[in-house]
Amino acid sequence: MFHLLDIIGTIAFALSGALTAMSKKLDLFGVFIIAFVTAVGGGTLRDVMIGSTPVGWMLNLEYVYVIGIAFVLALVFRKKFDRLRTSLLLFDTIGLGVFTLIGLEKGINIGLHPAVCIALGTMTACFGGVIRDILCTEIPVIFRKEIYATICILGGIVFFILKKFNLENDILYLITSLVIISVRLMAVKFKWYLPTLENE
Amino acid sequence: MFHLLDIIGTIAFALSGALTAMSKKLDLFGVFIIAFVTAVGGGTLRDVMIGSTPVGWMLNLEYVYVIGIAFVLALVFRKKFDRLRTSLLLFDTIGLGVFTLIGLEKGINIGLHPAVCIALGTMTACFGGVIRDILCTEIPVIFRKEIYATICILGGIVFFILKKFNLENDILYLITSLVIISVRLMAVKFKWYLPTLENE
Amino acid sequence: MFHLLDIIGTIAFALSGALTAMSKKLDLFGVFIIAFVTAVGGGTLRDVMIGSTPVGWMLNLEYVYVIGIAFVLALVFRKKFDRLRTSLLLFDTIGLGVFTLIGLEKGINIGLHPAVCIALGTMTACFGGVIRDILCTEIPVIFRKEIYATICILGGIVFFILKKFNLENDILYLITSLVIISVRLMAVKFKWYLPTLENE
Repeated sequence: MFHLLDIIGTIAFALSGALTAMSKKLDLFGVFIIAFVTAVGGGTLRDVMIGSTPVGWMLNLEYVYVIGIAFVLALVFRKKFDRLRTSLLLFDTIGLGVFTLIGLEKGINIGLHPAVCIALGTMTACFGGVIRDILCTEIPVIFRKEIYATICILGGIVFFILKKFNLENDILYLITSLVIISVRLMAVKFKWYLPTLENE
Repeated sequence: MFHLLDIIGTIAFALSGALTAMSKKLDLFGVFIIAFVTAVGGGTLRDVMIGSTPVGWMLNLEYVYVIGIAFVLALVFRKKFDRLRTSLLLFDTIGLGVFTLIGLEKGINIGLHPAVCIALGTMTACFGGVIRDILCTEIPVIFRKEIYATICILGGIVFFILKKFNLENDILYLITSLVIISVRLMAVKFKWYLPTLENE
Repeated sequence: MFHLLDIIGTIAFALSGALTAMSKKLDLFGVFIIAFVTAVGGGTLRDVMIGSTPVGWMLNLEYVYVIGIAFVLALVFRKKFDRLRTSLLLFDTIGLGVFTLIGLEKGINIGLHPAVCIALGTMTACFGGVIRDILCTEIPVIFRKEIYATICILGGIVFFILKKFNLENDILYLITSLVIISVRLMAVKFKWYLPTLENE
Protein backbone atom coordinates (compact mmCIF):
# COMPACT_ATOMS: atom_id res chain seq x y z
CA MET A 1 0.00 0.00 0.00
CA PHE A 2 2.70 2.42 1.09
CA HIS A 3 4.72 1.33 -1.95
CA LEU A 4 1.79 2.07 -4.26
CA LEU A 5 1.46 5.55 -2.76
CA ASP A 6 5.18 6.10 -3.30
CA ILE A 7 4.71 5.28 -7.00
CA ILE A 8 1.70 7.61 -7.24
CA GLY A 9 3.71 10.41 -5.62
CA THR A 10 6.65 9.84 -7.95
CA ILE A 11 4.36 10.03 -10.99
CA ALA A 12 2.71 13.20 -9.70
CA PHE A 13 6.05 14.89 -9.03
CA ALA A 14 7.43 13.85 -12.44
CA LEU A 15 4.29 15.19 -14.14
CA SER A 16 4.60 18.52 -12.32
CA GLY A 17 8.21 18.74 -13.48
CA ALA A 18 7.36 17.85 -17.07
CA LEU A 19 4.55 20.43 -17.18
CA THR A 20 6.79 23.19 -15.78
CA ALA A 21 9.50 22.30 -18.30
CA MET A 22 7.07 22.34 -21.23
CA SER A 23 5.71 25.73 -20.20
CA LYS A 24 9.34 26.95 -20.31
CA LYS A 25 9.58 25.57 -23.86
CA LEU A 26 12.38 23.14 -23.07
CA ASP A 27 13.19 20.40 -25.56
CA LEU A 28 12.43 16.70 -25.02
CA PHE A 29 15.64 16.02 -23.11
CA GLY A 30 15.09 19.06 -20.91
CA VAL A 31 11.53 17.97 -20.15
CA PHE A 32 12.72 14.49 -19.19
CA ILE A 33 15.52 15.75 -16.95
CA ILE A 34 13.25 18.26 -15.16
CA ALA A 35 10.63 15.52 -14.66
CA PHE A 36 13.36 13.27 -13.29
CA VAL A 37 14.91 15.73 -10.84
CA THR A 38 11.51 16.91 -9.63
CA ALA A 39 10.64 13.32 -8.75
CA VAL A 40 13.94 12.09 -7.28
CA GLY A 41 15.91 15.30 -6.62
CA GLY A 42 14.81 15.66 -3.00
CA GLY A 43 15.68 12.07 -2.16
CA THR A 44 18.98 12.35 -4.03
CA LEU A 45 19.97 15.47 -2.07
CA ARG A 46 19.03 13.66 1.15
CA ASP A 47 21.03 10.54 0.26
CA VAL A 48 24.09 12.59 -0.70
CA MET A 49 23.96 14.60 2.53
CA ILE A 50 23.62 11.54 4.79
CA GLY A 51 26.14 9.54 2.75
CA SER A 52 23.76 6.85 1.53
CA THR A 53 25.46 6.28 -1.83
CA PRO A 54 25.06 5.33 -4.65
CA VAL A 55 21.86 7.34 -4.24
CA GLY A 56 18.47 5.60 -4.18
CA TRP A 57 17.37 5.70 -7.82
CA MET A 58 20.68 4.20 -8.97
CA LEU A 59 20.01 1.03 -6.99
CA ASN A 60 16.27 0.74 -7.58
CA LEU A 61 15.46 1.25 -11.23
CA GLU A 62 11.74 1.18 -10.57
CA TYR A 63 11.80 4.96 -10.09
CA VAL A 64 13.48 5.41 -13.47
CA TYR A 65 10.77 3.33 -15.19
CA VAL A 66 7.95 5.09 -13.37
CA ILE A 67 9.36 8.50 -14.33
CA GLY A 68 9.70 7.28 -17.92
CA ILE A 69 6.00 6.40 -17.93
CA ALA A 70 5.06 9.76 -16.37
CA PHE A 71 7.17 11.48 -19.05
CA VAL A 72 5.28 9.72 -21.84
CA LEU A 73 1.94 10.50 -20.17
CA ALA A 74 2.95 14.17 -19.90
CA LEU A 75 3.79 14.29 -23.62
CA VAL A 76 0.65 12.55 -24.78
CA PHE A 77 -1.84 14.31 -22.53
CA ARG A 78 -0.08 17.67 -22.35
CA LYS A 79 -3.07 19.62 -23.59
CA LYS A 80 -5.50 17.94 -21.21
CA PHE A 81 -3.85 18.53 -17.87
CA ASP A 82 -5.95 21.56 -17.17
CA ARG A 83 -9.00 19.35 -16.76
CA LEU A 84 -7.07 16.97 -14.53
CA ARG A 85 -5.91 19.69 -12.17
CA THR A 86 -7.83 18.32 -9.18
CA SER A 87 -6.55 14.75 -9.59
CA LEU A 88 -3.02 16.03 -10.04
CA LEU A 89 -3.24 18.08 -6.88
CA LEU A 90 -4.45 15.02 -4.99
CA PHE A 91 -1.61 12.84 -6.32
CA ASP A 92 0.94 15.56 -5.58
CA THR A 93 -0.38 15.77 -2.04
CA ILE A 94 -0.11 12.01 -1.60
CA GLY A 95 3.51 12.34 -2.75
CA LEU A 96 4.08 15.06 -0.18
CA GLY A 97 2.91 12.80 2.64
CA VAL A 98 4.72 9.67 1.51
CA PHE A 99 8.01 11.38 0.66
CA THR A 100 8.06 13.12 4.04
CA LEU A 101 7.66 9.76 5.78
CA ILE A 102 10.41 8.16 3.70
CA GLY A 103 12.79 10.98 4.65
CA LEU A 104 11.86 10.81 8.32
CA GLU A 105 12.46 7.06 8.33
CA LYS A 106 15.89 7.36 6.67
CA GLY A 107 16.98 9.80 9.34
CA ILE A 108 15.67 7.65 12.19
CA ASN A 109 17.40 4.57 10.77
CA ILE A 110 20.81 6.19 11.07
CA GLY A 111 20.08 7.61 14.50
CA LEU A 112 19.85 11.31 13.71
CA HIS A 113 18.15 13.83 16.01
CA PRO A 114 14.37 14.30 15.44
CA ALA A 115 14.90 17.90 14.23
CA VAL A 116 17.32 16.61 11.57
CA CYS A 117 14.91 13.80 10.64
CA ILE A 118 12.18 16.39 10.08
CA ALA A 119 14.59 18.38 7.93
CA LEU A 120 15.30 15.21 5.92
CA GLY A 121 11.58 14.51 5.49
CA THR A 122 10.95 18.05 4.29
CA MET A 123 13.97 17.88 1.98
CA THR A 124 12.78 14.60 0.46
CA ALA A 125 9.29 15.96 -0.18
CA CYS A 126 10.09 19.53 -1.24
CA PHE A 127 13.57 19.91 -2.67
CA GLY A 128 12.91 18.12 -5.95
CA GLY A 129 10.63 21.08 -6.66
CA VAL A 130 13.34 23.50 -5.53
CA ILE A 131 15.83 21.97 -7.97
CA ARG A 132 13.16 22.02 -10.71
CA ASP A 133 12.61 25.75 -10.19
CA ILE A 134 16.33 26.55 -10.04
CA LEU A 135 16.95 24.67 -13.31
CA CYS A 136 14.16 26.77 -14.84
CA THR A 137 15.73 29.93 -13.27
CA GLU A 138 12.70 30.69 -11.10
CA ILE A 139 12.90 31.54 -7.41
CA PRO A 140 11.58 28.30 -5.85
CA VAL A 141 7.81 28.50 -5.51
CA ILE A 142 7.85 26.96 -2.03
CA PHE A 143 9.97 29.89 -0.78
CA ARG A 144 7.46 32.51 -1.77
CA LYS A 145 3.96 31.37 -2.58
CA GLU A 146 2.70 28.10 -1.32
CA ILE A 147 2.45 26.81 2.21
CA TYR A 148 3.98 23.47 1.40
CA ALA A 149 7.23 22.71 3.21
CA THR A 150 5.72 24.02 6.43
CA ILE A 151 3.15 21.23 6.23
CA CYS A 152 5.92 18.63 6.03
CA ILE A 153 7.53 20.15 9.12
CA LEU A 154 4.16 20.05 10.89
CA GLY A 155 3.71 16.41 9.83
CA GLY A 156 7.16 15.58 11.17
CA ILE A 157 6.37 17.18 14.53
CA VAL A 158 3.09 15.25 14.76
CA PHE A 159 5.02 12.08 13.93
CA PHE A 160 7.51 12.50 16.76
CA ILE A 161 4.84 13.48 19.28
CA LEU A 162 2.78 10.39 18.44
CA LYS A 163 5.92 8.25 18.54
CA LYS A 164 6.19 9.00 22.25
CA PHE A 165 2.93 7.06 22.75
CA ASN A 166 4.46 3.85 21.39
CA LEU A 167 1.95 3.55 18.57
CA GLU A 168 2.50 0.84 15.99
CA ASN A 169 4.46 2.01 12.97
CA ASP A 170 1.52 1.48 10.61
CA ILE A 171 -0.78 3.69 12.67
CA LEU A 172 1.95 6.27 13.08
CA TYR A 173 2.51 6.43 9.33
CA LEU A 174 -1.19 6.54 8.57
CA ILE A 175 -1.93 9.43 10.93
CA THR A 176 1.11 11.44 9.84
CA SER A 177 0.24 11.14 6.15
CA LEU A 178 -3.41 11.97 6.81
CA VAL A 179 -2.35 15.10 8.72
CA ILE A 180 -0.07 16.22 5.89
CA ILE A 181 -2.62 15.42 3.18
CA SER A 182 -5.59 17.05 4.88
CA VAL A 183 -3.73 20.21 5.95
CA ARG A 184 -2.35 20.56 2.42
CA LEU A 185 -5.79 20.22 0.82
CA MET A 186 -7.22 22.75 3.26
CA ALA A 187 -4.30 25.12 2.60
CA VAL A 188 -5.08 24.99 -1.11
CA LYS A 189 -8.84 25.30 -0.65
CA PHE A 190 -8.70 28.18 1.83
CA LYS A 191 -5.66 29.80 0.23
CA TRP A 192 -3.46 29.81 3.31
CA TYR A 193 -0.14 31.58 2.89
CA LEU A 194 2.84 32.23 5.07
CA PRO A 195 3.46 35.93 5.66
CA THR A 196 6.25 37.67 3.79
CA LEU A 197 8.29 40.30 5.54
CA GLU A 198 9.88 43.28 3.96
CA ASN A 199 12.98 44.84 5.37
CA GLU A 200 12.74 48.16 3.63
CA MET B 1 46.11 8.47 -25.92
CA PHE B 2 42.87 8.35 -23.99
CA HIS B 3 44.55 10.41 -21.29
CA LEU B 4 45.61 13.05 -23.83
CA LEU B 5 42.03 13.28 -25.09
CA ASP B 6 40.81 13.71 -21.51
CA ILE B 7 43.18 16.68 -21.12
CA ILE B 8 42.01 18.18 -24.43
CA GLY B 9 38.39 17.80 -23.34
CA THR B 10 39.09 19.40 -19.96
CA ILE B 11 40.76 22.39 -21.63
CA ALA B 12 37.87 22.79 -24.07
CA PHE B 13 35.26 22.65 -21.30
CA ALA B 14 37.22 25.12 -19.14
CA LEU B 15 37.54 27.49 -22.10
CA SER B 16 33.82 27.32 -22.80
CA GLY B 17 33.17 28.15 -19.14
CA ALA B 18 35.64 31.04 -19.13
CA LEU B 19 34.15 32.52 -22.29
CA THR B 20 30.60 32.30 -20.95
CA ALA B 21 31.71 33.91 -17.68
CA MET B 22 33.50 36.75 -19.48
CA SER B 23 30.47 37.47 -21.63
CA LYS B 24 28.50 37.79 -18.36
CA LYS B 25 31.10 40.35 -17.19
CA LEU B 26 32.19 38.30 -14.17
CA ASP B 27 35.41 39.23 -12.42
CA LEU B 28 38.62 37.17 -12.53
CA PHE B 29 37.60 34.90 -9.66
CA GLY B 30 34.17 34.34 -11.20
CA VAL B 31 35.73 33.47 -14.55
CA PHE B 32 38.08 30.97 -12.91
CA ILE B 33 35.32 29.29 -10.89
CA ILE B 34 33.00 29.01 -13.89
CA ALA B 35 35.86 27.58 -15.97
CA PHE B 36 36.55 25.11 -13.15
CA VAL B 37 33.00 23.90 -12.61
CA THR B 38 32.34 23.61 -16.34
CA ALA B 39 35.35 21.31 -16.64
CA VAL B 40 34.97 19.18 -13.50
CA GLY B 41 31.39 19.85 -12.35
CA GLY B 42 29.86 16.88 -14.17
CA GLY B 43 32.44 14.45 -12.78
CA THR B 44 32.12 15.96 -9.31
CA LEU B 45 28.33 15.53 -9.34
CA ARG B 46 28.82 11.92 -10.49
CA ASP B 47 31.40 11.17 -7.78
CA VAL B 48 29.21 12.68 -5.07
CA MET B 49 26.17 10.71 -6.20
CA ILE B 50 27.98 7.37 -6.35
CA GLY B 51 29.92 8.09 -3.14
CA SER B 52 33.40 8.17 -4.68
CA THR B 53 34.85 10.77 -2.30
CA PRO B 54 36.95 12.89 -1.97
CA VAL B 55 35.84 13.68 -5.53
CA GLY B 56 38.19 13.13 -8.47
CA TRP B 57 39.89 16.51 -8.86
CA MET B 58 40.83 16.61 -5.16
CA LEU B 59 42.95 13.49 -5.57
CA ASN B 60 44.42 14.20 -8.99
CA LEU B 61 45.67 17.77 -9.19
CA GLU B 62 46.42 17.45 -12.87
CA TYR B 63 42.91 18.69 -13.64
CA VAL B 64 43.49 21.77 -11.49
CA TYR B 65 46.71 22.61 -13.36
CA VAL B 66 45.13 22.01 -16.77
CA ILE B 67 42.18 24.26 -15.90
CA GLY B 68 44.64 26.90 -14.66
CA ILE B 69 46.36 26.82 -18.04
CA ALA B 70 43.03 27.01 -19.88
CA PHE B 71 42.07 29.99 -17.70
CA VAL B 72 45.25 31.86 -18.66
CA LEU B 73 44.72 30.99 -22.34
CA ALA B 74 41.17 32.30 -22.13
CA LEU B 75 42.35 35.61 -20.63
CA VAL B 76 45.16 36.14 -23.11
CA PHE B 77 43.34 35.12 -26.27
CA ARG B 78 39.88 36.31 -25.27
CA LYS B 79 39.43 38.53 -28.30
CA LYS B 80 40.55 35.85 -30.75
CA PHE B 81 38.25 32.99 -29.90
CA ASP B 82 35.85 33.89 -32.65
CA ARG B 83 38.40 32.83 -35.21
CA LEU B 84 39.08 29.60 -33.32
CA ARG B 85 35.42 28.59 -33.19
CA THR B 86 35.89 25.47 -35.33
CA SER B 87 38.86 24.15 -33.32
CA LEU B 88 37.00 24.82 -30.08
CA LEU B 89 33.98 22.91 -31.30
CA LEU B 90 36.21 19.98 -32.20
CA PHE B 91 37.92 19.97 -28.80
CA ASP B 92 34.59 20.30 -27.01
CA THR B 93 33.28 17.34 -28.99
CA ILE B 94 36.32 15.26 -28.06
CA GLY B 95 35.56 16.13 -24.43
CA LEU B 96 31.98 15.00 -24.92
CA GLY B 97 33.11 11.59 -26.13
CA VAL B 98 35.85 11.05 -23.55
CA PHE B 99 33.85 12.26 -20.55
CA THR B 100 30.92 10.04 -21.49
CA LEU B 101 33.25 7.02 -21.54
CA ILE B 102 34.79 7.95 -18.17
CA GLY B 103 31.33 8.16 -16.63
CA LEU B 104 30.21 4.87 -18.18
CA GLU B 105 33.34 3.15 -16.85
CA LYS B 106 32.88 4.47 -13.31
CA GLY B 107 29.34 3.09 -13.24
CA ILE B 108 30.40 -0.30 -14.62
CA ASN B 109 33.22 -0.55 -12.07
CA ILE B 110 30.80 -0.39 -9.16
CA GLY B 111 28.34 -2.74 -10.79
CA LEU B 112 25.49 -0.38 -11.61
CA HIS B 113 22.77 -1.17 -14.16
CA PRO B 114 23.58 -0.16 -17.78
CA ALA B 115 20.81 2.47 -17.75
CA VAL B 116 22.38 4.09 -14.68
CA CYS B 117 25.86 3.87 -16.26
CA ILE B 118 24.52 5.73 -19.30
CA ALA B 119 23.05 8.35 -16.96
CA LEU B 120 26.46 8.68 -15.28
CA GLY B 121 28.21 9.06 -18.64
CA THR B 122 25.77 11.75 -19.71
CA MET B 123 26.08 13.49 -16.35
CA THR B 124 29.89 13.49 -16.56
CA ALA B 125 29.86 14.96 -20.06
CA CYS B 126 26.97 17.41 -19.80
CA PHE B 127 26.34 18.58 -16.25
CA GLY B 128 29.41 20.75 -15.91
CA GLY B 129 27.71 22.89 -18.55
CA VAL B 130 24.42 22.73 -16.64
CA ILE B 131 26.12 24.02 -13.47
CA ARG B 132 27.88 26.72 -15.55
CA ASP B 133 24.54 27.93 -16.90
CA ILE B 134 22.84 27.86 -13.49
CA LEU B 135 25.67 29.88 -11.91
CA CYS B 136 25.17 32.41 -14.72
CA THR B 137 21.36 32.28 -14.14
CA GLU B 138 20.58 30.94 -17.59
CA ILE B 139 18.26 28.02 -18.27
CA PRO B 140 20.78 25.29 -19.21
CA VAL B 141 21.45 25.41 -22.94
CA ILE B 142 21.36 21.60 -23.25
CA PHE B 143 17.73 21.61 -22.02
CA ARG B 144 16.50 23.88 -24.75
CA LYS B 145 18.72 24.39 -27.73
CA GLU B 146 21.40 21.92 -28.54
CA ILE B 147 21.16 18.23 -29.21
CA TYR B 148 24.02 17.33 -26.92
CA ALA B 149 23.10 15.11 -24.00
CA THR B 150 21.01 12.95 -26.30
CA ILE B 151 24.20 12.09 -28.21
CA CYS B 152 25.83 10.88 -24.99
CA ILE B 153 22.84 8.66 -24.33
CA LEU B 154 23.05 7.32 -27.88
CA GLY B 155 26.79 6.69 -27.41
CA GLY B 156 26.08 4.83 -24.17
CA ILE B 157 23.50 2.60 -25.88
CA VAL B 158 25.95 1.82 -28.71
CA PHE B 159 28.56 1.01 -26.05
CA PHE B 160 26.39 -1.55 -24.28
CA ILE B 161 25.19 -3.13 -27.53
CA LEU B 162 28.77 -3.58 -28.75
CA LYS B 163 29.81 -4.88 -25.33
CA LYS B 164 27.56 -7.90 -25.92
CA PHE B 165 29.87 -8.91 -28.77
CA ASN B 166 32.85 -9.26 -26.41
CA LEU B 167 34.92 -6.68 -28.24
CA GLU B 168 38.20 -5.61 -26.68
CA ASN B 169 37.90 -2.54 -24.46
CA ASP B 170 40.10 -0.44 -26.75
CA ILE B 171 37.92 -1.10 -29.77
CA LEU B 172 34.77 -0.55 -27.73
CA TYR B 173 36.02 2.82 -26.52
CA LEU B 174 37.20 3.85 -29.97
CA ILE B 175 33.90 3.07 -31.67
CA THR B 176 31.81 4.70 -28.94
CA SER B 177 33.79 7.93 -29.03
CA LEU B 178 33.75 8.00 -32.83
CA VAL B 179 29.96 7.60 -32.78
CA ILE B 180 29.56 10.44 -30.27
CA ILE B 181 32.03 12.73 -32.07
CA SER B 182 30.66 12.15 -35.55
CA VAL B 183 26.99 12.44 -34.58
CA ARG B 184 27.76 15.63 -32.66
CA LEU B 185 29.61 17.19 -35.60
CA MET B 186 26.76 16.25 -37.93
CA ALA B 187 24.21 17.66 -35.45
CA VAL B 188 26.05 21.00 -35.49
CA LYS B 189 26.54 21.02 -39.27
CA PHE B 190 22.98 20.07 -40.14
CA LYS B 191 21.41 21.99 -37.24
CA TRP B 192 19.59 19.05 -35.68
CA TYR B 193 17.36 19.94 -32.77
CA LEU B 194 15.12 18.02 -30.44
CA PRO B 195 11.47 19.07 -30.66
CA THR B 196 10.02 21.30 -27.98
CA LEU B 197 6.47 20.74 -26.84
CA GLU B 198 4.10 23.33 -25.58
CA ASN B 199 1.32 22.51 -23.19
CA GLU B 200 -0.78 25.58 -23.72
CA MET C 1 37.56 31.49 21.68
CA PHE C 2 37.71 29.97 18.22
CA HIS C 3 34.37 28.33 18.92
CA LEU C 4 32.84 31.68 19.89
CA LEU C 5 34.07 33.22 16.64
CA ASP C 6 32.53 30.31 14.72
CA ILE C 7 29.16 31.10 16.35
CA ILE C 8 29.52 34.81 15.54
CA GLY C 9 30.34 33.97 11.93
CA THR C 10 27.37 31.62 11.66
CA ILE C 11 25.01 34.29 12.99
CA ALA C 12 26.40 36.89 10.60
CA PHE C 13 26.05 34.58 7.61
CA ALA C 14 22.50 33.58 8.60
CA LEU C 15 21.55 37.27 9.00
CA SER C 16 22.96 38.11 5.57
CA GLY C 17 20.89 35.27 4.11
CA ALA C 18 17.72 36.35 5.92
CA LEU C 19 18.12 39.96 4.78
CA THR C 20 18.67 38.95 1.15
CA ALA C 21 15.62 36.68 1.31
CA MET C 22 13.41 39.39 2.81
CA SER C 23 14.46 41.88 0.15
CA LYS C 24 13.33 39.27 -2.40
CA LYS C 25 9.94 39.13 -0.61
CA LEU C 26 10.20 35.45 0.25
CA ASP C 27 7.82 34.02 2.84
CA LEU C 28 8.86 32.96 6.35
CA PHE C 29 9.91 29.46 5.29
CA GLY C 30 11.92 30.86 2.38
CA VAL C 31 13.67 33.34 4.67
CA PHE C 32 14.59 30.56 7.11
CA ILE C 33 15.91 28.25 4.41
CA ILE C 34 18.01 30.98 2.78
CA ALA C 35 19.40 31.97 6.21
CA PHE C 36 20.19 28.30 6.83
CA VAL C 37 21.95 27.58 3.53
CA THR C 38 23.90 30.83 3.65
CA ALA C 39 25.28 29.82 7.06
CA VAL C 40 25.94 26.11 6.51
CA GLY C 41 25.79 25.69 2.73
CA GLY C 42 29.54 26.11 2.18
CA GLY C 43 30.41 23.59 4.87
CA THR C 44 27.76 21.18 3.61
CA LEU C 45 29.12 21.33 0.07
CA ARG C 46 32.62 20.72 1.45
CA ASP C 47 31.50 17.75 3.56
CA VAL C 48 29.62 16.19 0.67
CA MET C 49 32.61 16.57 -1.67
CA ILE C 50 35.11 15.05 0.77
CA GLY C 51 32.66 12.36 1.89
CA SER C 52 32.34 13.47 5.51
CA THR C 53 28.70 12.38 5.95
CA PRO C 54 26.17 12.86 7.50
CA VAL C 55 27.23 16.48 6.93
CA GLY C 56 28.31 18.66 9.88
CA TRP C 57 25.08 20.38 10.92
CA MET C 58 23.24 17.02 11.10
CA LEU C 59 25.59 15.83 13.83
CA ASN C 60 26.01 19.07 15.75
CA LEU C 61 22.66 20.73 16.31
CA GLU C 62 24.26 23.83 17.78
CA TYR C 63 24.39 25.35 14.30
CA VAL C 64 20.67 24.75 13.85
CA TYR C 65 19.88 26.54 17.13
CA VAL C 66 22.21 29.44 16.38
CA ILE C 67 20.64 29.89 12.94
CA GLY C 68 17.20 29.76 14.55
CA ILE C 69 18.21 32.62 16.86
CA ALA C 70 19.66 34.61 13.96
CA PHE C 71 16.40 34.06 12.05
CA VAL C 72 14.34 35.49 14.92
CA LEU C 73 16.74 38.43 15.27
CA ALA C 74 16.44 39.12 11.55
CA LEU C 75 12.63 39.16 11.77
CA VAL C 76 12.46 41.38 14.84
CA PHE C 77 15.13 43.89 13.87
CA ARG C 78 14.56 43.81 10.12
CA LYS C 79 13.97 47.52 9.80
CA LYS C 80 17.03 48.44 11.88
CA PHE C 81 19.76 46.60 10.06
CA ASP C 82 20.72 49.64 8.07
CA ARG C 83 22.07 51.26 11.22
CA LEU C 84 23.92 48.06 12.13
CA ARG C 85 25.68 47.81 8.80
CA THR C 86 29.18 48.29 10.24
CA SER C 87 28.74 45.68 12.99
CA LEU C 88 27.29 43.24 10.48
CA LEU C 89 30.24 43.73 8.16
CA LEU C 90 32.62 43.05 11.03
CA PHE C 91 30.79 39.87 12.06
CA ASP C 92 30.61 38.68 8.46
CA THR C 93 34.35 39.25 8.13
CA ILE C 94 35.02 37.25 11.29
CA GLY C 95 32.94 34.46 9.73
CA LEU C 96 35.06 34.69 6.58
CA GLY C 97 38.25 34.16 8.57
CA VAL C 98 36.96 31.39 10.82
CA PHE C 99 35.17 29.43 8.11
CA THR C 100 38.26 29.52 5.89
CA LEU C 101 40.32 28.03 8.73
CA ILE C 102 37.73 25.31 9.41
CA GLY C 103 37.80 24.32 5.75
CA LEU C 104 41.60 24.32 5.60
CA GLU C 105 41.75 22.13 8.69
CA LYS C 106 39.25 19.59 7.33
CA GLY C 107 41.33 19.20 4.19
CA ILE C 108 44.60 18.84 6.12
CA ASN C 109 43.04 16.22 8.42
CA ILE C 110 42.32 13.90 5.51
CA GLY C 111 45.68 14.52 3.90
CA LEU C 112 44.69 16.52 0.85
CA HIS C 113 47.14 18.67 -1.15
CA PRO C 114 47.53 22.29 0.11
CA ALA C 115 45.94 23.66 -3.07
CA VAL C 116 42.86 21.51 -2.45
CA CYS C 117 42.80 22.54 1.24
CA ILE C 118 42.76 26.20 0.16
CA ALA C 119 39.89 25.38 -2.21
CA LEU C 120 38.03 23.75 0.69
CA GLY C 121 38.64 26.76 2.94
CA THR C 122 37.35 29.12 0.26
CA MET C 123 34.36 26.87 -0.40
CA THR C 124 33.47 26.75 3.31
CA ALA C 125 33.64 30.52 3.64
CA CYS C 126 32.13 31.61 0.34
CA PHE C 127 29.81 29.01 -1.16
CA GLY C 128 26.98 29.44 1.32
CA GLY C 129 26.63 32.88 -0.25
CA VAL C 130 26.83 31.38 -3.73
CA ILE C 131 23.95 28.98 -2.94
CA ARG C 132 21.99 31.88 -1.38
CA ASP C 133 22.34 33.91 -4.58
CA ILE C 134 21.45 30.97 -6.84
CA LEU C 135 18.30 30.23 -4.80
CA CYS C 136 17.37 33.90 -5.26
CA THR C 137 18.22 33.63 -9.01
CA GLU C 138 21.01 36.19 -8.85
CA ILE C 139 24.45 35.70 -10.37
CA PRO C 140 26.57 35.09 -7.25
CA VAL C 141 27.83 38.43 -5.93
CA ILE C 142 31.31 37.03 -5.23
CA PHE C 143 31.71 36.23 -8.93
CA ARG C 144 31.18 39.78 -10.06
CA LYS C 145 31.39 42.49 -7.45
CA GLU C 146 33.20 41.89 -4.25
CA ILE C 147 36.76 40.84 -3.64
CA TYR C 148 35.87 38.17 -1.16
CA ALA C 149 36.85 34.66 -2.15
CA THR C 150 40.23 35.93 -3.33
CA ILE C 151 40.95 36.99 0.25
CA CYS C 152 40.26 33.45 1.48
CA ILE C 153 42.68 32.12 -1.11
CA LEU C 154 45.27 34.67 0.01
CA GLY C 155 44.68 33.66 3.65
CA GLY C 156 45.14 30.01 2.73
CA ILE C 157 48.46 30.75 1.00
CA VAL C 158 49.68 32.73 4.03
CA PHE C 159 48.64 29.78 6.22
CA PHE C 160 50.69 27.24 4.29
CA ILE C 161 53.74 29.53 4.04
CA LEU C 162 53.70 30.11 7.82
CA LYS C 163 53.16 26.41 8.42
CA LYS C 164 56.62 25.77 6.96
CA PHE C 165 58.08 27.67 9.93
CA ASN C 166 56.66 25.17 12.42
CA LEU C 167 54.62 27.77 14.24
CA GLU C 168 52.21 26.58 16.89
CA ASN C 169 48.69 25.99 15.59
CA ASP C 170 47.21 28.78 17.72
CA ILE C 171 49.61 31.38 16.34
CA LEU C 172 49.09 30.05 12.82
CA TYR C 173 45.30 30.37 13.15
CA LEU C 174 45.54 33.80 14.70
CA ILE C 175 47.78 35.27 12.01
CA THR C 176 45.77 33.73 9.17
CA SER C 177 42.47 35.07 10.48
CA LEU C 178 43.97 38.50 11.10
CA VAL C 179 45.29 38.59 7.53
CA ILE C 180 41.88 37.65 6.13
CA ILE C 181 39.98 40.05 8.39
CA SER C 182 42.27 43.04 7.84
CA VAL C 183 42.54 42.61 4.06
CA ARG C 184 38.77 42.23 3.84
CA LEU C 185 38.12 45.39 5.85
CA MET C 186 40.64 47.31 3.73
CA ALA C 187 39.04 45.92 0.55
CA VAL C 188 35.66 47.26 1.66
CA LYS C 189 37.05 50.60 2.84
CA PHE C 190 39.15 51.28 -0.24
CA LYS C 191 36.70 49.66 -2.64
CA TRP C 192 39.11 47.13 -4.12
CA TYR C 193 37.70 45.10 -6.98
CA LEU C 194 38.98 42.37 -9.20
CA PRO C 195 39.08 43.35 -12.86
CA THR C 196 36.41 42.06 -15.20
CA LEU C 197 37.33 41.11 -18.71
CA GLU C 198 35.15 41.33 -21.73
CA ASN C 199 35.59 39.08 -24.69
CA GLU C 200 33.63 41.05 -27.21
